[in-house]
Amino acid sequence: MDERGLERRAANWAPLTPLTFLQWAARVYPDRTAVIHGEQTFTYAELQARCRRLASALARRSIGRGDTVAVMAPNVPAMLEAHYGVPMAGAVLNALNYRLDARSIAFILEHGEARLLITDREFSPTIEAALRLLGRPIPVIDIDDPLHEGGRRLGEKDYEAFLAEGDPALDFGPPEDEWQAICLLYTSGTTGDPKGVVYHHRGAYLNALGNALTFGLSPRTVYLWTLPMFHCSGWTYTWAVTAVGGTHVCLRRVDPALIFPAIARHGVTHMCGAPVVMTMLIHAPQDVKVRFDHVVEMATGGAAPPSTVIAAMEAMGFRVTHLYGLTETYGPATVCAWQPGREGLPVDARAAEMARQGVNYPTLEGMMVADPATLAPVERDGAALGEVMLRGNTVMRGYLKNPRATEAAFAGGWFHSGDLAVWHPDGYIEIKDRSKDVIISGGENISSLEIEEQLYRHPAVMEAAVVARPDPKWGETPCAFVTLKPGATATADEIVAFLRDTLAHYKVPRHVVFGPLPKTSTGKIQKFVLRERARDPR
Amino acid sequence: MDERGLERRAANWAPLTPLTFLQWAARVYPDRTAVIHGEQTFTYAELQARCRRLASALARRSIGRGDTVAVMAPNVPAMLEAHYGVPMAGAVLNALNYRLDARSIAFILEHGEARLLITDREFSPTIEAALRLLGRPIPVIDIDDPLHEGGRRLGEKDYEAFLAEGDPALDFGPPEDEWQAICLLYTSGTTGDPKGVVYHHRGAYLNALGNALTFGLSPRTVYLWTLPMFHCSGWTYTWAVTAVGGTHVCLRRVDPALIFPAIARHGVTHMCGAPVVMTMLIHAPQDVKVRFDHVVEMATGGAAPPSTVIAAMEAMGFRVTHLYGLTETYGPATVCAWQPGREGLPVDARAAEMARQGVNYPTLEGMMVADPATLAPVERDGAALGEVMLRGNTVMRGYLKNPRATEAAFAGGWFHSGDLAVWHPDGYIEIKDRSKDVIISGGENISSLEIEEQLYRHPAVMEAAVVARPDPKWGETPCAFVTLKPGATATADEIVAFLRDTLAHYKVPRHVVFGPLPKTSTGKIQKFVLRERARDPR
Repeated sequence: MDERGLERRAANWAPLTPLTFLQWAARVYPDRTAVIHGEQTFTYAELQARCRRLASALARRSIGRGDTVAVMAPNVPAMLEAHYGVPMAGAVLNALNYRLDARSIAFILEHGEARLLITDREFSPTIEAALRLLGRPIPVIDIDDPLHEGGRRLGEKDYEAFLAEGDPALDFGPPEDEWQAICLLYTSGTTGDPKGVVYHHRGAYLNALGNALTFGLSPRTVYLWTLPMFHCSGWTYTWAVTAVGGTHVCLRRVDPALIFPAIARHGVTHMCGAPVVMTMLIHAPQDVKVRFDHVVEMATGGAAPPSTVIAAMEAMGFRVTHLYGLTETYGPATVCAWQPGREGLPVDARAAEMARQGVNYPTLEGMMVADPATLAPVERDGAALGEVMLRGNTVMRGYLKNPRATEAAFAGGWFHSGDLAVWHPDGYIEIKDRSKDVIISGGENISSLEIEEQLYRHPAVMEAAVVARPDPKWGETPCAFVTLKPGATATADEIVAFLRDTLAHYKVPRHVVFGPLPKTSTGKIQKFVLRERARDPR
Repeated sequence: MDERGLERRAANWAPLTPLTFLQWAARVYPDRTAVIHGEQTFTYAELQARCRRLASALARRSIGRGDTVAVMAPNVPAMLEAHYGVPMAGAVLNALNYRLDARSIAFILEHGEARLLITDREFSPTIEAALRLLGRPIPVIDIDDPLHEGGRRLGEKDYEAFLAEGDPALDFGPPEDEWQAICLLYTSGTTGDPKGVVYHHRGAYLNALGNALTFGLSPRTVYLWTLPMFHCSGWTYTWAVTAVGGTHVCLRRVDPALIFPAIARHGVTHMCGAPVVMTMLIHAPQDVKVRFDHVVEMATGGAAPPSTVIAAMEAMGFRVTHLYGLTETYGPATVCAWQPGREGLPVDARAAEMARQGVNYPTLEGMMVADPATLAPVERDGAALGEVMLRGNTVMRGYLKNPRATEAAFAGGWFHSGDLAVWHPDGYIEIKDRSKDVIISGGENISSLEIEEQLYRHPAVMEAAVVARPDPKWGETPCAFVTLKPGATATADEIVAFLRDTLAHYKVPRHVVFGPLPKTSTGKIQKFVLRERARDPR
């Protein structure tokens, strides 16, 4: 083919960027409610104007391409706006995990080279301490949200006054290069310093479309923000909901007493969250469980939803979808995709299907379970264990200023997830453990997840985690940590007897410890803390 | 931001290509029905194997990157497979318009430099004549479809034998460059030689995702092929349906006696077609109108669906969506997007809303109505007339070997659609005419579409078209061509009297001619033929 005259030009090539979605929504749905926050609402025209104000206020301070802007906030409008306003200015959004301590925040502000910090009053104690630890001054803008009482303002002006500096009509256009950085997100990092994951515009655009398609978003979507936006850019729903002209319902904290009324009042159609969110909803007091008469789609990830949870959620009017991903993959990278006939299965059989992490999104080009050293795929037999490997356009650019970690993560042309899984004959993966969470007892690999799944079947158990305990004879043995349901009772012996009915004996924990479980800032159980405790479980 | 170590690599960058969707569907839905053709079905695993066979059979004949493969076929599995197998081999698919005459086909085979032709027996008379006109020999493969009787085989072997030459397991991988050509499609061209529109992998991928999102496709989608696949690659639904793992239901010809039973039997959820398809369904004999108990989404484009058509379609169980686009924009580029509250409107008010071509897809970066010379956007007042301008990733690379036409089409960094429209205050466009279809009478612009819209309101009118007739006094006057409904009667005077009730007098046609309307090969009314007839309308 003679390709002369068929080159790229302004008419037929544009950088892929999720900023397009806001421009689109503001054109198509200018008067539709884009954001709800308490009694406050913004239309898409208003949201766009606010984001443009933010971008131009940043630009006036010479913050532009490649500069980092950090934001410490719950799911408030300012946090959503930062996902557009900051990249509009060409800058990079560093959404901070608000559950982190001051030392970690200081490390991130230093490592990420934040040029400006926007912070919510709620987190002023942590931020104040972090700023003291930080070796340099940094301009601070306060989010002075009337929906929160307490905390104090730390900065030079509040966010609304900062927006007032900007021009609501200034159209910044797309970035020059779709590979340009859009977000910087630090992994919680159970060991060592947090790593800074860099997203680009192309990946953000594609994963947002992948999510919109996979989760069935439409212009009728009303999305409730039960997932923190700092968590993988809100799994890219910050952009996906806008791509369909849906409504974002903000939520400062995950509280069933707020969630149920919001669902009923705003007609919420979709929401996301870690399994702990579902547990909270299920175990909420009856008087906060406002009824609603439609089905709410709930996407969850981080751990497989047990059948009891799925059944309880369905009984309340939710339909659960199981996703899997990591910060490094813009959040969701795989989905336990619907298959014809699944609806007809009893809940236990469906739960067994849905416990699997599934298949890659259509927008992620590659997924396999493989030997991490040789990259040879494992057999698709549901038994052979390998590491989940991902690759494609929705994998991060790499870790900021950490070439060693980047090279290790990308060894052999695949992103190494660190998660161990089996590959089923139908192509679905099922995660068995984090690499470092496998328990090796007498030379046998024991999956802590397998034991946990059985523990969750015990009627008195609300939460459970299993870790390795050093053992002079076996090398390691499993040690279980259990939180009982409110009002429920069970002894360690009863739990062990229960597990012996279904597990091989070498897999049954020698120790069962009761009490609340330590969680990471993103709601994951902190197994490294439990591993320490397991050394002396009494 | 320090970007060192954050470069593109195999783990985090892949060319965008719709070939990914087939790979994905074959992995996620290997056993699901991908294609239905009469009593024949293929699963996604089988479809992938067949496409790989096609690609490797082509590669064995040294057909590869940049080579053109032409296909002359209705909506049969071979045509769908060509949309994957040809680009898998790196080659470019030239789907031929099977309504064209031998001379046009010969021109296209010559201009497009086809290296191989795959052709259905049904079109053997045209193809045989075209091959005689073509100045060079070309290998021919016959599609010997048992669902068609007649015609004859012209080539060296039939398609199934050709597939047998290939390797069903050979994985070709994506193209090196997402800008690489994937399809070559000739515009029907009412004047001069047809122009060869070149699509690339990136645009095909993005428009397919845009369609899947806009039309609400999901894994439950069963798509009936009432739109020719040669038409803008089937508006990219050839790829979009696969991107969700839906089912393609093939259909050799648009016949209500086939369509209604197919909808009921296969549970069709989505279909597309020109307005004439809807007219055929509405006016089909009662005994072929098999009832179905679900809603079928019907996307239409090319002309605004009149309210009578929308009402009649809804009464039969269809929900109509109005799209607009051109071959140059991979088919649909705009959609009359849903707005809250529209459902509550009476059908006439809804039809008035839905008659508009709407807003650009979220996957198309730019749309405006502007002065074609200055590119100044017109007022958004629903009155000022301008040309529809489009730009973004889903605009063609250009016209093959036609730099002059390409430069003209892309003048000023926008694709000039040639369609005249007004821009409404809500951002929706409404096409008033093709540039060349405007009637200029006594210095006033008259929209032929406006008159046609009124003609369609007459109870006896089934189809109508209005063109300019040279007039010594006024320059031009409108001339109407009308097809009456079966059994209906009306005189020219009655029609004129009917129009005088609603139209300004200078807009009322001086002549009304009854009879069937000439159609282009894609089902559009051939106004250039009518213009000739209008010179002597008696």
